[in-house]
Amino acid sequence: MIEPKTIDAILEKVRKEKPLVHNITNVVVTNFTANGLLAIGASPVMAYAKEEVADMAKIAGALVLNIGTLNEENVEAMLLAGKSANKHGVPVIFDPVGAGATKYRTETAQKIVKELEITAVRGNAAEVANVVGESWSIKGVDSGDGEGDIIELAVKAAKQLNTIAVITGKQDIVSDGETTYICKNGNSLLTKVTGAGCLLTSVIGAFCAVEKDYVRASAAALAVYGSAAELAAEGIEGPGSFQIEFLNNLYTISADNIQKLSALEEVSHVNL
Amino acid sequence: MIEPKTIDAILEKVRKEKPLVHNITNVVVTNFTANGLLAIGASPVMAYAKEEVADMAKIAGALVLNIGTLNEENVEAMLLAGKSANKHGVPVIFDPVGAGATKYRTETAQKIVKELEITAVRGNAAEVANVVGESWSIKGVDSGDGEGDIIELAVKAAKQLNTIAVITGKQDIVSDGETTYICKNGNSLLTKVTGAGCLLTSVIGAFCAVEKDYVRASAAALAVYGSAAELAAEGIEGPGSFQIEFLNNLYTISADNIQKLSALEEVSHVNL
Amino acid sequence: MIEPKTIDAILEKVRKEKPLVHNITNVVVTNFTANGLLAIGASPVMAYAKEEVADMAKIAGALVLNIGTLNEENVEAMLLAGKSANKHGVPVIFDPVGAGATKYRTETAQKIVKELEITAVRGNAAEVANVVGESWSIKGVDSGDGEGDIIELAVKAAKQLNTIAVITGKQDIVSDGETTYICKNGNSLLTKVTGAGCLLTSVIGAFCAVEKDYVRASAAALAVYGSAAELAAEGIEGPGSFQIEFLNNLYTISADNIQKLSALEEVSHVNL
Repeated sequence: MIEPKTIDAILEKVRKEKPLVHNITNVVVTNFTANGLLAIGASPVMAYAKEEVADMAKIAGALVLNIGTLNEENVEAMLLAGKSANKHGVPVIFDPVGAGATKYRTETAQKIVKELEITAVRGNAAEVANVVGESWSIKGVDSGDGEGDIIELAVKAAKQLNTIAVITGKQDIVSDGETTYICKNGNSLLTKVTGAGCLLTSVIGAFCAVEKDYVRASAAALAVYGSAAELAAEGIEGPGSFQIEFLNNLYTISADNIQKLSALEEVSHVNL
Repeated sequence: MIEPKTIDAILEKVRKEKPLVHNITNVVVTNFTANGLLAIGASPVMAYAKEEVADMAKIAGALVLNIGTLNEENVEAMLLAGKSANKHGVPVIFDPVGAGATKYRTETAQKIVKELEITAVRGNAAEVANVVGESWSIKGVDSGDGEGDIIELAVKAAKQLNTIAVITGKQDIVSDGETTYICKNGNSLLTKVTGAGCLLTSVIGAFCAVEKDYVRASAAALAVYGSAAELAAEGIEGPGSFQIEFLNNLYTISADNIQKLSALEEVSHVNL
Repeated sequence: MIEPKTIDAILEKVRKEKPLVHNITNVVVTNFTANGLLAIGASPVMAYAKEEVADMAKIAGALVLNIGTLNEENVEAMLLAGKSANKHGVPVIFDPVGAGATKYRTETAQKIVKELEITAVRGNAAEVANVVGESWSIKGVDSGDGEGDIIELAVKAAKQLNTIAVITGKQDIVSDGETTYICKNGNSLLTKVTGAGCLLTSVIGAFCAVEKDYVRASAAALAVYGSAAELAAEGIEGPGSFQIEFLNNLYTISADNIQKLSALEEVSHVNL
């Protein structure tokens, strides 16, 4: 169990410290990611050139790698940045967008988790399953509807990759293999805004930049993000307005909101 | 004549089947395109790497190629993806952004229509004219104000390229050379939102993914898109709000709305 | 002193002439930049390929270079476009995003101002300082809080680079080394919208495209931009809504608004 006041304390630390979050991400979500990070209080930077990524990752509070529109050059930059982050103790958050949709994505995702020490991997069930070599249905970069026990998958992925696994969907799971949380915050309109998952990965980066208990930081990020989505969805007409209200609520979400809304619970491992 | 209920039926099929639309598009409009496709009910994916575009195009319901910020690498990817789509019967929609503005754009656009079987090409009059080698004034990537008979141009382009030509402007024309429609839906604020044309091209892709009568699918897409724009423009303060309301209305537009607004008519070829 | 009616006259000229502004900019801000330029009345084009940038820059009213997500290929394109613009008398506006954050950015920024004739450079104090080789604290691509006399820095940068220096922050300075203005328009929510600085650079481009007194054009752009931000901030809930209202207000801002809000003053050089 993570108390709402603990969640809020991490959020306030983000707002106070304004951690630099270095993103190497896809071309679809760069703007939304940067605006979302600014709204939550972080300081986003996008830098992709092999000439500078190691320098930028070194001074960042967190590095976020996202393969949504990967190419050879970007993957090379991700590895350079990741190694620099690993060397300097900067947490690395990985978003394996579309792993499983093409062989190239699956293999690249597996290469990244093999060559780098990943602090946390965030994806839908199909993506995370494909990173760990489980078969799972996937269509494009949208979440698959495959069956299976998501909690079990998260625990397995965390152990196998020696990382924190964050699996998002109707309910979100975060696990380091030992401690596991389930978060029931969120709203289905998030699935109608491109990059909602990608931005969450970057927000996890911002939280990990200020809180070294990374499982706790990741879980807190889920609760804040999902609660902001719930606030944003009130009285909304469609995904256009929702996207704007969501940015507003990432900016304004308060300790009070979190106290009322947070739906984060620890999951017992007894039956796994 | 296409009945409003036929138009609505195709829209509902998009919403139900959520076709995967693979876009190789320009860096300006990726986010808006993805959000617009999500709003209308489709499932967008952007994938550009030569290592994966053939695989992605193969599993897509439609492939959309857009040269708005073309470069050598992207054009190579477009050709690889396009050949894969052609081989697997996936419709290919082409947006020759800025054809005529520079020699490189014109030549690339002509190369794409030559090397690939294009299901539909969507552009303003100047762009389509330049693809078929007609001279037409153009400034940057905005539509030219050149004179000429747009309907005649559409019919000519359709025949010459053996494709469906969709020419958009104050009025939109769609023709396969035999059957031609004119659509009077739309709102001038669309010209103040970057990527409004590009997103339309992708929406045509989504409609062609679920309706194999591609002329009908393209015409229906124009009517839905333009009607959503009319709904979005009601009481709006400027292009910022319009963009958001437009996304809302792509999401919420109903059979009733289409019944009331659709302004799609067949054009007689008698006088051409 | 620049009279509000002079400022408005330049704005009206942008709206009437719709100058083509060719941007080679970063992947984070392309959409917002294009929408902002459309809102203010200009005609944006993004073109990056070495095969076409010289052709596009030649026909543009202004060229805007922005190194926010620079790489080797883009920098090469910037130099080709810049040389073409220089040759054809097209003003070149430069935004050295993140200069000082990494060695690669600093060196590239310095290379660009060395190899091209830059009409105006727009950045925060840290960025401009790093372009002219002054040390200044900087974190990522956000403005540094280093001390120092911003006005003095602007005058120095203008003289050293033989350009117009535009330094933005709580107050904005524009100087060609001889004439210097301070603009107090703006709103702090601009710092919560990614690309607010980048779009300003492009708007300066649009103003310089229609007004050959470039210092006057740049100062007018600051006043219009900052005034639109003030209008947009009224009664706003957060940065999401602000971004949308800002686009609305760039579109609707009137002579009356400028008359009431413009806070642009000439700075005496006596004490420098």
